[in-house]
Amino acid sequence: MSDRSKPRKQPKPLSPSLASSPPTPKTLTPSRMARRSLLKPFLASALSLLALYSLLHASPSPNPLSFSSYSSSSATVPRPPVPNIYVYDLPRKFTYGVIRSYLLARDPGATPPPDDNPHYPGHQHSAEWYLFSDLLRPDRRPDSPVRRVSDPADADLFYVPFFSSLSLIVNPIRPANAGAAPERAYSDEAMQEELMEWLEGQEYWRRNRGRDHVFICQDPNALYRVIDRVRNAVLLVSDFGRLRGDQASLVKDVILPYSHRINPYKGDIGIEGRHSLLFFMGNRYRKEGGKVRDTLFQILEHEKDVVIKHGTQSRESRRMATQGMHSSKFCLHPAGDTPSACRLFDAIVSLCVPVIVSDYIELPFEDVIDYKKIAMFVDTRSAVKPGYLTKMLRKVSKDKILQYQQELKMVKRYFEYEDPDGTVNEIWRQVSSKLPLIKLMINRDKRLVKRGPHDLDCSCICSRQNGTIISR
Amino acid sequence: MSDRSKPRKQPKPLSPSLASSPPTPKTLTPSRMARRSLLKPFLASALSLLALYSLLHASPSPNPLSFSSYSSSSATVPRPPVPNIYVYDLPRKFTYGVIRSYLLARDPGATPPPDDNPHYPGHQHSAEWYLFSDLLRPDRRPDSPVRRVSDPADADLFYVPFFSSLSLIVNPIRPANAGAAPERAYSDEAMQEELMEWLEGQEYWRRNRGRDHVFICQDPNALYRVIDRVRNAVLLVSDFGRLRGDQASLVKDVILPYSHRINPYKGDIGIEGRHSLLFFMGNRYRKEGGKVRDTLFQILEHEKDVVIKHGTQSRESRRMATQGMHSSKFCLHPAGDTPSACRLFDAIVSLCVPVIVSDYIELPFEDVIDYKKIAMFVDTRSAVKPGYLTKMLRKVSKDKILQYQQELKMVKRYFEYEDPDGTVNEIWRQVSSKLPLIKLMINRDKRLVKRGPHDLDCSCICSRQNGTIISR
Repeated sequence: MSDRSKPRKQPKPLSPSLASSPPTPKTLTPSRMARRSLLKPFLASALSLLALYSLLHASPSPNPLSFSSYSSSSATVPRPPVPNIYVYDLPRKFTYGVIRSYLLARDPGATPPPDDNPHYPGHQHSAEWYLFSDLLRPDRRPDSPVRRVSDPADADLFYVPFFSSLSLIVNPIRPANAGAAPERAYSDEAMQEELMEWLEGQEYWRRNRGRDHVFICQDPNALYRVIDRVRNAVLLVSDFGRLRGDQASLVKDVILPYSHRINPYKGDIGIEGRHSLLFFMGNRYRKEGGKVRDTLFQILEHEKDVVIKHGTQSRESRRMATQGMHSSKFCLHPAGDTPSACRLFDAIVSLCVPVIVSDYIELPFEDVIDYKKIAMFVDTRSAVKPGYLTKMLRKVSKDKILQYQQELKMVKRYFEYEDPDGTVNEIWRQVSSKLPLIKLMINRDKRLVKRGPHDLDCSCICSRQNGTIISR
Repeated sequence: MSDRSKPRKQPKPLSPSLASSPPTPKTLTPSRMARRSLLKPFLASALSLLALYSLLHASPSPNPLSFSSYSSSSATVPRPPVPNIYVYDLPRKFTYGVIRSYLLARDPGATPPPDDNPHYPGHQHSAEWYLFSDLLRPDRRPDSPVRRVSDPADADLFYVPFFSSLSLIVNPIRPANAGAAPERAYSDEAMQEELMEWLEGQEYWRRNRGRDHVFICQDPNALYRVIDRVRNAVLLVSDFGRLRGDQASLVKDVILPYSHRINPYKGDIGIEGRHSLLFFMGNRYRKEGGKVRDTLFQILEHEKDVVIKHGTQSRESRRMATQGMHSSKFCLHPAGDTPSACRLFDAIVSLCVPVIVSDYIELPFEDVIDYKKIAMFVDTRSAVKPGYLTKMLRKVSKDKILQYQQELKMVKRYFEYEDPDGTVNEIWRQVSSKLPLIKLMINRDKRLVKRGPHDLDCSCICSRQNGTIISR
């Protein structure tokens, strides 16, 4: 299921005015001032009524409904303000141009799509499209965890909306028109270089050496050629499989879920329709950590209640995977070429309890999701012992499976890119939470004096497994 | 100015009800429900008026005054909720008992102070008192960046209010009653051990191995005996001078300012009354990085517009320091035994532009304060070149000094522990900002499988100086 060239479903096109989001005024315009001066006395009287009320009903303990917790007139701000994000107006070739090249490479005679309805092709790394669309939407939710600003001088963060994952697959594995193939002229590597040239000409990039910039490189190979030049920035990635510790980390970067590729299970929790114990369908032969797959095939393919199939991406295999995931209790998630894969998110929306065999996996939104409640984790060494996996899974009680399913249902929205309260908002929330440390590092970098040449100046947090002791 | 035994000023005693902060109900009590049900329709009508108003005056761009930005009725929460903090009800010997031991060690015949007015002695590491008092105050600000809860099951964070810095100096350097000295029986080391024994018996400590616990150890030697047993926790410290990278870091810990020890300058900005170019008063002889002090004395003591004096803590030396800092343009801040010292904060509240010669200093609240705007930084190698410092400082224009002073004035509140909108709130804000990563690490630790024994599992962020490349 890793051939990325066959789109399943077009993400929803945006409204025609997509590209013309109105600017947020930096200073008060006369009309805004007038509105404000009308609003103020109104607010003042409404709020003083509330204040009076809360005084009369004062309680000495913190009251979540008390006046000052939602007063905008308070002198102090109780929580950090919503970060302002500036979206670079990149040359078109880095955004809509990539979509156009992708479509033309598959159908050289096609009429290029209009920019206001660009038909971004569906694939597992389409977060770049959802984030871009969200930022440009004129009717953005006012409670989004980031506020878009039109003046970079107001920005805390800078979003670089290059479609780096789509760029990687513009050239199809089998060109539509072998021989002529004019679209072979597209070079992802050249695009990466040109992007950096463009950025390095920007004042706001140079100011903090990109530390307050946000890049999306969801495909593990996206931006690979320039990754060392963007490693100060916040990277939105699928895992750290191909990134070194000095390029990406949980401290500054954000793990994104893949877009799920099969349809969510609409039914309720239960195991009645789930006759198979364990299901897996995907490429049997993978590189690196994914070599475990072949071993798992050998161990599992003769178990009678296990469905394990070799298959690559196609409409037919997605149909079979949907059926398999909707009718199994557990879904296997072995490492692929890198520790993550879209199969995990397919399993989640299928309410099929994921069984994760991927020792180096990083998981999205792990500050709010306790994955132990929705998935089982098995280390690779144990998983490849004959009989280990099936014996373990057969021992899981029906109640426990229902518990897992209940929890899966509760977190489903985190993996729905199209849910207005789903993945996109959660990604921005994650990015926002990085801001205090980003700002600290920016200010600190400005005033650091020369130290010894061998003083590595890094700040870390370590897991308890290694690097921290276990309390006695 | 580093002898900590002579108090200047008693921090304000709290109200008698200090120790009996009312619990925050976990569930709604009947009276609270009644209040809420009265409040609800009132709020609803007030807010619907506001909603109507904002509809009539709707603007397509995000409006900072728009209704929904302070509506409490929105279904989704735009920003992470205020963290809940639980304050351990430690055995008294770890809190009020330390104060009592301190006072008795100085005056064995004294009547022990009552718990409701405990006279915490003033010293530069008294943040532990201010934070404790803030958490126990019955009239805590509802907009505090942390909410105290009475049930540990509701808590995101756990505060351990051991007075570790005061404990370190319970035994005076010269006992009040040499010979008998019964208070010599106090052992800070034993206290640290007993604290850990107590904690390690607590369910919530064991649950996440202390990762969600907060300790204050502001004196660089506080908690030194057990530091490896608390290093998973959030540590509130003055600097990292005596801590290794695997014990403390900018990622998980918070740098606190010292309490300033001299009176703030009340006048306006200006250089008229500031006749000296540079002022320093403190101990000439220090260990480690502080050895630079003696060299600086040799270089500077014969410059005619420089006042540089050897002095230790006393009422008289504080009077002289106040006078010196209020009448100088620049105030020298060389490293002491560790990179930080209270003198920096004395300079800030004196509007005397700090000149920092301390290559490994870490600074409080650096995510919101750009120290380049309020201080000058000189690397040690340059600072000890004869003539370098004075030549550099004489070149600074009057306008530039006024600019520095203006900025100093603006950030002063961050260094006022007694300001309701000052240091204490800012510390809680910093602690809150650590929470997403703490929660991530806690969830991740639960599901990590065994990896290779030599895989160090740490996530880091590095300065641009080393560890990250400089963009081309």
